[in-house]
Amino acid sequence: MNKGGGETSYTQNSSLQQKIISDSMPITEKAVEALISTDATSAWPPQSIAIADLGCSSGRNALLLISDTINLVYAKCKRLGYPLPEVSVFLNDLFNNDFNSIFGSLPDFHRRLKDTNGDEVGRCFISGMPGSFYGRLFPKHSLNFVHSSSSLHWLSKVPEGLEGEDKIRMNKGKVYISRTSPPSVLLAYAAQFKNDFSRFISSRSEEMVSGGRMVLSFMGRKSMDPTAAGTAHQWELLAEALTTLGLVDAEKIESFNAPFYAPCMEEVRMEIEKEGSFNIDQFEDFDVEWDDSTEGTNSGLKSPSRGQRVAKTIRAVVETMLESHFGFGGKIMDVLFERYGAIVEDYLSWNTIKSTNLVVSFVKK
Amino acid sequence: MNKGGGETSYTQNSSLQQKIISDSMPITEKAVEALISTDATSAWPPQSIAIADLGCSSGRNALLLISDTINLVYAKCKRLGYPLPEVSVFLNDLFNNDFNSIFGSLPDFHRRLKDTNGDEVGRCFISGMPGSFYGRLFPKHSLNFVHSSSSLHWLSKVPEGLEGEDKIRMNKGKVYISRTSPPSVLLAYAAQFKNDFSRFISSRSEEMVSGGRMVLSFMGRKSMDPTAAGTAHQWELLAEALTTLGLVDAEKIESFNAPFYAPCMEEVRMEIEKEGSFNIDQFEDFDVEWDDSTEGTNSGLKSPSRGQRVAKTIRAVVETMLESHFGFGGKIMDVLFERYGAIVEDYLSWNTIKSTNLVVSFVKK
Repeated sequence: MNKGGGETSYTQNSSLQQKIISDSMPITEKAVEALISTDATSAWPPQSIAIADLGCSSGRNALLLISDTINLVYAKCKRLGYPLPEVSVFLNDLFNNDFNSIFGSLPDFHRRLKDTNGDEVGRCFISGMPGSFYGRLFPKHSLNFVHSSSSLHWLSKVPEGLEGEDKIRMNKGKVYISRTSPPSVLLAYAAQFKNDFSRFISSRSEEMVSGGRMVLSFMGRKSMDPTAAGTAHQWELLAEALTTLGLVDAEKIESFNAPFYAPCMEEVRMEIEKEGSFNIDQFEDFDVEWDDSTEGTNSGLKSPSRGQRVAKTIRAVVETMLESHFGFGGKIMDVLFERYGAIVEDYLSWNTIKSTNLVVSFVKK
Repeated sequence: MNKGGGETSYTQNSSLQQKIISDSMPITEKAVEALISTDATSAWPPQSIAIADLGCSSGRNALLLISDTINLVYAKCKRLGYPLPEVSVFLNDLFNNDFNSIFGSLPDFHRRLKDTNGDEVGRCFISGMPGSFYGRLFPKHSLNFVHSSSSLHWLSKVPEGLEGEDKIRMNKGKVYISRTSPPSVLLAYAAQFKNDFSRFISSRSEEMVSGGRMVLSFMGRKSMDPTAAGTAHQWELLAEALTTLGLVDAEKIESFNAPFYAPCMEEVRMEIEKEGSFNIDQFEDFDVEWDDSTEGTNSGLKSPSRGQRVAKTIRAVVETMLESHFGFGGKIMDVLFERYGAIVEDYLSWNTIKSTNLVVSFVKK
């Protein structure tokens, strides 16, 4: 993610992820309702609840999920006449996430929490837990509610096996699974997802209490075929921008593949069932349009084109990744994303860029 | 604390605090031994242990206490033939502490932990909990071991009542309790300490499990009289530097008082006994010499004088405080601490600057 609050920052260009949080909210709401209504904590009514947000990022979305979840907990407890529980919140992201900026905004967060709940708030302890969620992060049986939004489509690493014998690149001119990708590329990506997702599920299984709830929301696809039209088209167009720019070393492009995977429901379901310690309560998909016209339209400034808006959303998320692989930044990055914006704009004139978002709600057995 | 890793940073000038951690280690060791040997966790032998370091700061001392404590836990468990417990660590400091730099050093920390313990390490979950320790930070009955070093001598704020009627400054030309301070200044400082320390103790009382252990180490004094010679002399000399510099507005100096208090053992004991939920297991004091000759002596460079070394240690801790009160930085700050260094050097030629450090070890009833 791009840090800070500037024009290309994630903070200024994350309304797509915010929309996904809000679209998933009915499922989160149902899960929190169920959590409070059933005996999923050691004492009853629950005196304390531990919540984790996995892949919280930083910027304005970092506390959004948590704030919504806490408000739901309070509302439900008040409706049932329960005393408000102590809520422990663990915000997780990678070691290099900007936790300082999140922590700096906590005094404001606590004020807003009081404003929203009319001063009737319980104690709320918010901490940061850095590390990869593809492994254990928390002690055994310590979490009641786990949430993750717009994070699990990021793999722990670029899949292995994208280079054939003699170091032949298998996915030339592409940066993710594409129609022209050979089957070995599809298999390598699917295997990496399986490996990562199963480690995610088994780690959470150890960390969560019986009866605990988990809601995961991430990009996926509707078709079983990962090369089907409309699946992760943002990468297809980024590959086009990179290869036609004329400024980027061809060998570098050939060796770049995104650590991303948009699974289909069946792949997700299979890993959950194989692990065996969760029941799926609800599993939905919904479309998200990449062109979110509410962003980047500061009054008094010329509105950016739809293509530019999509380019900014993508840039905020992938720039650091590109920087570390290609070794360029600044001017070339600007030119790359101008070109990407133009390609997207052109594409949008005869199509839409939609992604499928999967939302799955589980109960720990 | 001065952030970063530069010449005036806390990281480069914190060997005094490091020495205090190491001098307090025998007491910490005894407390950890006792914790593991007695049934202070819900299951026995302990399957998980939660440790908090309150006022961890950042830089090279931030993980020192924790690393020492974890090594002690592992050593004791191995000696007793217990399986290694899962250890949860909460690093606490104020919202503006540089947690990013601590988190960035965690991958290295975990590697060192393995090196020290010959790969036989249990799971260790390290999180950051920002906020003031003069209030609740953690859920009820959630901590087994609490540690704090070189932090509790900082008050939550400058005491109220240092201005008399008609806004007459009570502590003119001084920045802390001094021989010339009127009794109202002594009383205001003592009252603020009482208030802060009692809130600290009652908060920890709620957070700790019965049988849990706490080791606190902070600056104090041997004499009941807070104006006795050798008590907090670093402030006396800082006041001299400020008033004789000729560059700082006199009104600004008059309104500056340090949010610091070095209590005597009796004051500490009284608050612990009044609160009533802890037994004092051990209470020691020891002297710390301010001139630590091991610091700032990069090879090839001229060694700084003893006065300059002391000035650097103090500057690393108080610079941000002075900056926000006096509104100057850079050049004037350099000149101020040059002058301070010279005053200290002169003082050291016929005296030593020693502080008393108190270490108290408690058991939660």
